[in-house]
Amino acid sequence: MLDNLEALKKSFDETGYQLSGHGPRNVKVLKQAFQEIDEDTKSDIYGSGAAIGDFEDKMANFLGKEKAVFFPSGTMAQQIALRIWCDEKGSAKVAYHPLSHLEIHEEDGLKKLHGIETVLLTERDNVIQPEDVKAMDKDVSCVLLELPQREIGGQLPRFETLQAISDYCRANDIRLHLDGARILETLPFYQKSIEEICELFDSVYMSMYKGIGGIAGAVLAGGEEFIRQSKVWKKRHGGDLISLYPYIFTADYYFEMRKGKMEEYYESAKELAARYNSCTGISTLPEVPVSNMFHVHINKPTDEAAQVLAAVQQESGIGLTGYVREVDQNKCYYEVSMGDFYTTAPQEKIELAFQLLDKKMRTLPFSN
Amino acid sequence: MLDNLEALKKSFDETGYQLSGHGPRNVKVLKQAFQEIDEDTKSDIYGSGAAIGDFEDKMANFLGKEKAVFFPSGTMAQQIALRIWCDEKGSAKVAYHPLSHLEIHEEDGLKKLHGIETVLLTERDNVIQPEDVKAMDKDVSCVLLELPQREIGGQLPRFETLQAISDYCRANDIRLHLDGARILETLPFYQKSIEEICELFDSVYMSMYKGIGGIAGAVLAGGEEFIRQSKVWKKRHGGDLISLYPYIFTADYYFEMRKGKMEEYYESAKELAARYNSCTGISTLPEVPVSNMFHVHINKPTDEAAQVLAAVQQESGIGLTGYVREVDQNKCYYEVSMGDFYTTAPQEKIELAFQLLDKKMRTLPFSN
Repeated sequence: MLDNLEALKKSFDETGYQLSGHGPRNVKVLKQAFQEIDEDTKSDIYGSGAAIGDFEDKMANFLGKEKAVFFPSGTMAQQIALRIWCDEKGSAKVAYHPLSHLEIHEEDGLKKLHGIETVLLTERDNVIQPEDVKAMDKDVSCVLLELPQREIGGQLPRFETLQAISDYCRANDIRLHLDGARILETLPFYQKSIEEICELFDSVYMSMYKGIGGIAGAVLAGGEEFIRQSKVWKKRHGGDLISLYPYIFTADYYFEMRKGKMEEYYESAKELAARYNSCTGISTLPEVPVSNMFHVHINKPTDEAAQVLAAVQQESGIGLTGYVREVDQNKCYYEVSMGDFYTTAPQEKIELAFQLLDKKMRTLPFSN
Repeated sequence: MLDNLEALKKSFDETGYQLSGHGPRNVKVLKQAFQEIDEDTKSDIYGSGAAIGDFEDKMANFLGKEKAVFFPSGTMAQQIALRIWCDEKGSAKVAYHPLSHLEIHEEDGLKKLHGIETVLLTERDNVIQPEDVKAMDKDVSCVLLELPQREIGGQLPRFETLQAISDYCRANDIRLHLDGARILETLPFYQKSIEEICELFDSVYMSMYKGIGGIAGAVLAGGEEFIRQSKVWKKRHGGDLISLYPYIFTADYYFEMRKGKMEEYYESAKELAARYNSCTGISTLPEVPVSNMFHVHINKPTDEAAQVLAAVQQESGIGLTGYVREVDQNKCYYEVSMGDFYTTAPQEKIELAFQLLDKKMRTLPFSN
């Protein structure tokens, strides 16, 4: 018999409509992007050739940086960025948020491969403020800011906060790196251009498969010498593949398709978060989203929440989530990232799903 | 005006038939492999799912090892294998051939990322012998053998030599790793099964885009605990991509297409090498190939050789090479790897090409 979490996953997979994401991660994502690409189009070869160079130039220009390099993963790109800034200053120390991807999702690659010490700025539930940066030792080579701060629901500091941190770092010989996995998704909130954001940073990483929805891959952008060194480290990491075009052409295809849709995702995030916040025992973090993402916090133990959500999904045909993660014995949460899928679901079905959710949150736990 | 090397490249690209390789590295390689794959086929997700697991199981079974893991690159796979064996023994020292890929093509990733010291066994022009291994310090954690030894034309030690090295390493607490980028290509010479070769090694790397002709990617195989650790290091390196299926499905497709063709490639390598050796001032290394590959050495300066080869290619329509690399002021060479392309070229055109090559080697340099 399935346990409650497995049943939740199953009920999600069986829904006809899902409110987050762009759709299933399947082979269609590849095939659709390659449909119009000529068979004779040449592969990139170990980082050379138009297949990679043209896209790198395009992204450098888009981000307002001198140069860019395509990486198979953001994990690789960011470790390398920090390593370069550490070598430049001669101090193997960087600072970032305690819930940074590098700190919690990369098996300590930064420490184990690069011997870099990390300083954790601020508390887990906060975004980094200028005071946090000013309080740290000045032998830190680089501060990494993640915008939005994914693990706390995609929260953002104000733009003036970013400016203040950038100003301080520039005045104190500290490099500033942007973990911009989801940076495009923040533009509607900031009401700034991508160049205005990136200008505050010495180096910028952007993911090609979050809001953009490509298959995998990342872009790292910065000055010419920084990118030259990045390519050397890319080879060292084993990321200078003979052919990266399966990721590059798809990245380009979905970048063109979705770069202009971030406002739509942002608006739908606010709309959907409001629906969640209208339900008993449920709140979103942040309450009003500042990008396309937010976390849904449920005041029930994981097992009970899974039962509630599975029941809602089965009865409504609307997919809310495939998992919940425990916060403590009485609370759990899951992440929502808005994409193309939201607008495919009929409004009356969404309405029904949230009526059911509110009702079941009030009337359950079940007796089983 | 094009210089001679550029003209050589251009003349090669313009030929109707090319004697080495499987064909151009273009988007068709991807499209062909995906043609029969259903759009609904699910992606792998960070190393999980049937898309990656099924192929890893298949390759572990094929290589006769407990487990296998798919990597985006051999560079990453091999550094990680050596790191694991170094950690196991507590000695950051490995030994390999002076022309190992790790020593000359990876920007010293092994040293810079893993802090591993390298011992170079034997001279550049030799293959590693048991005496070389016995002469090294016993604090070496792992010996890496590359079969065939690519940078010296794909030479191979005898199978008994491999057995003797393996026996010595096992008796002396030294791990033996196989750089088997082109290991399938050696089976017709050894007249052994792939399991008989791999059984001599603690860990095995095989490329999916050399003789197999996939887009990119590699398989690392070994014991269960070794592979468990490999996956942790894969994440640290930034190689645990959310989706590797564009490489995996193509690897599987071309593996099935070509795993049985290594005998054909071996025979055509011997045939083609004999043609080269019949030409004035040209010899192959090895004289009689022992895999699908060999090097063509030309007793002329790089510039003159490029002129000769370009002229042959223009007049015959047969592509021999797109480059030559200097050995010294009077000699140069290039590499040949046989694949599906050889049999597409008409024999009389090949005959003509080698008549022209012999003639021009005797009568040129040009007067320009």
